[in-house]
Amino acid sequence: MGAEGSLVIENVTLSTPLPEQGSWQVVTTPDAYVVIEGGIVSEVGKGTPPRAESILDGCGRAAIPALCDPHTHAIFAGWRAREFEMRLTGKGYKEILAAGGGILDTVRATREASGDDLARLLRRRLDAMLSRGVLTCEVKSGYGLDVDTEIRMLKAISEAGKDHPVDVVSTFLGAHAVPGEWSGDGAGYIEEVVVPLIGEIARRGLAEFVDVFCEPGAFSVAESRRVLEAATGAGLGLRIHADELEASGGAALAAEMGCASAEHLLSAPPDQLLQMRDADVTAVLLPGTALVLGQPYAQGRWMVDQGMSVALGSDFNPGSSPIIDMGLIMVLACLQMKMTPAEVLVAATRNAAMSLGRRDRGVVAPGYRGDLVILDAPQYTHLMYRPGARLVSSVISAGDVVFSEDITDL
Amino acid sequence: MGAEGSLVIENVTLSTPLPEQGSWQVVTTPDAYVVIEGGIVSEVGKGTPPRAESILDGCGRAAIPALCDPHTHAIFAGWRAREFEMRLTGKGYKEILAAGGGILDTVRATREASGDDLARLLRRRLDAMLSRGVLTCEVKSGYGLDVDTEIRMLKAISEAGKDHPVDVVSTFLGAHAVPGEWSGDGAGYIEEVVVPLIGEIARRGLAEFVDVFCEPGAFSVAESRRVLEAATGAGLGLRIHADELEASGGAALAAEMGCASAEHLLSAPPDQLLQMRDADVTAVLLPGTALVLGQPYAQGRWMVDQGMSVALGSDFNPGSSPIIDMGLIMVLACLQMKMTPAEVLVAATRNAAMSLGRRDRGVVAPGYRGDLVILDAPQYTHLMYRPGARLVSSVISAGDVVFSEDITDL
Repeated sequence: MGAEGSLVIENVTLSTPLPEQGSWQVVTTPDAYVVIEGGIVSEVGKGTPPRAESILDGCGRAAIPALCDPHTHAIFAGWRAREFEMRLTGKGYKEILAAGGGILDTVRATREASGDDLARLLRRRLDAMLSRGVLTCEVKSGYGLDVDTEIRMLKAISEAGKDHPVDVVSTFLGAHAVPGEWSGDGAGYIEEVVVPLIGEIARRGLAEFVDVFCEPGAFSVAESRRVLEAATGAGLGLRIHADELEASGGAALAAEMGCASAEHLLSAPPDQLLQMRDADVTAVLLPGTALVLGQPYAQGRWMVDQGMSVALGSDFNPGSSPIIDMGLIMVLACLQMKMTPAEVLVAATRNAAMSLGRRDRGVVAPGYRGDLVILDAPQYTHLMYRPGARLVSSVISAGDVVFSEDITDL
Repeated sequence: MGAEGSLVIENVTLSTPLPEQGSWQVVTTPDAYVVIEGGIVSEVGKGTPPRAESILDGCGRAAIPALCDPHTHAIFAGWRAREFEMRLTGKGYKEILAAGGGILDTVRATREASGDDLARLLRRRLDAMLSRGVLTCEVKSGYGLDVDTEIRMLKAISEAGKDHPVDVVSTFLGAHAVPGEWSGDGAGYIEEVVVPLIGEIARRGLAEFVDVFCEPGAFSVAESRRVLEAATGAGLGLRIHADELEASGGAALAAEMGCASAEHLLSAPPDQLLQMRDADVTAVLLPGTALVLGQPYAQGRWMVDQGMSVALGSDFNPGSSPIIDMGLIMVLACLQMKMTPAEVLVAATRNAAMSLGRRDRGVVAPGYRGDLVILDAPQYTHLMYRPGARLVSSVISAGDVVFSEDITDL
């Protein structure tokens, strides 16, 4: 129906963040209905809804805004199960990286993949995200690290997102790692490959954001600043991988450059986090990575208490976070970062969408997109309370039911 | 087909534990086939299989023995999402228990539920386990804590398991907690309610095992010994919840009494663990509980290194481990207990089944039950490597395909 007809969702326990940025409140309305007209929510009420072309009976289940995953590396070829086994026997991330493994393994496989293959792989992963209630996700390039492959990845991201219910936001991450052929000369790679590509990508409309991995072993603060300045010059939005493994100035750079988001932040110093807050930079926290790498989690509880804008993402990638399930991310945010279920819902909907410049979603209220998830559970808190449960019974995108499943867990 | 015809599974990468108890090796055979006749594996080979009535093409995917979950509290009424929120704001397990919450909340809801309702709830949960590749599970009573409800639970367990593909092993856990009406008199409850019930349950064939929660706040070592002695006298198998929150002598008691298993063991002293090893008691580790309660994990790595028999279970229950997904348990065993993928596979198949007295499964070899899982992944290690992924594409029980799913994650 989308832009055409109208849909009423009735008899749900609706839980939604408020529209106001900075609010962590979740408002729950039992016996609620939601009217979606032309893809947009036109009315939210309680009790008997108005008539509509289509009616979806929620049977008293919980309904929430569709989820948003603001940080994924979902386009890649090749898994790294063997490296997973290596890590279990004590090899560190940097050790594997230094041995030519890690990211560069995926770069090799991705360079060998065709654009069609990459698009096909990504579409299946978008299906997987959809089955977890995600309707908006960010996907980064960054496993090409050369002109041809980076462009091919970005075109495949665009291709995979066409006609798929999941709305895909594309980010150019040419500065993900120093490729083998530029080993020891990250600055040269930035100047000769990344910066020129930023201009071309902006001209061709191939990405909305530019991201850079600011970290010892990847790119320095100065190199990262160069990337972000080029992106600003090209009119693209800014994101940054900051302080994932060591405090290295990334959070402060995010504040200085006015990035939309700084991501990871496992090792970010408190004073730099407060600079981020004052510069209105969203902290995108990725607890799946901490789980997989066995690192201490980012200080989510503290960041919320300090009034920062916090979002949650999967960091889905074949190395440090092979986790496509935002449900599990939300579980970890509660159990490991001590955020409350309400804070986690806000972080995985409104705040995540906002960090991607999508201010039309993540809230169920008149004027917002008609993007909802109905859970096979009486309260939305079951998403956080029951790790690994399948709870997504329906996903509605702009008033269309785009996913429904019978096999859910009671 | 089961007892009647024959099934050949061909073109799989088969990974299986060895039959020998104590071995941690997993043998992987690419391009393998498995012949199942009359429900039993009659041949395992490589390359072109013999002719058969039915052929299942594995398309090169990974195949493993079906999983076994040796520790669940899967029969209960009522979730405890509110308590989950309480815990996130700092309330401890014992604090919630002392306030009349925790287990006793579930006891109240379960006492109010009919046997039909309990059986219906359990059947849906067995469906959920099946979708994760589990074909054998243990289910404990223990939310009745009175004669009528405990018997009703055990009958409902039997009812739910009838005609369901998952083989259910029933355990009487009358000594799960001291019910409100016996508050302060655990010994009296044991003598007046639990011990007589053990005799009745054995006579009526309502359970194979008896379990007891040996822990301060639940039952003392002396009370636990009384329960286990009664079970031995009645000819039932013995299990024990030991040292979950505090070292309290449970592991030593398990060795003394020759229990089939001692479970949890988060706080068990090393010398008592070695007594368990020498008495051939399986350590059933439940890492989901450590995740949910924020406790240090059991020393799985150390136990394996000491030559103990280690199995893995979900502890699925509405309080301390609302996790029905054995895949997630296997992930945690790797990431948090530093067991290798091979050790985890052995622990979740052969060792788990053995702790339940099911020595006919958990291995794919001639003479064993034809119980397999085909994964939508090239190696079984993806089960541990990709947290939250849906990888179970087919489940075969005694030569019958009892579950298959198209929506799996690439």
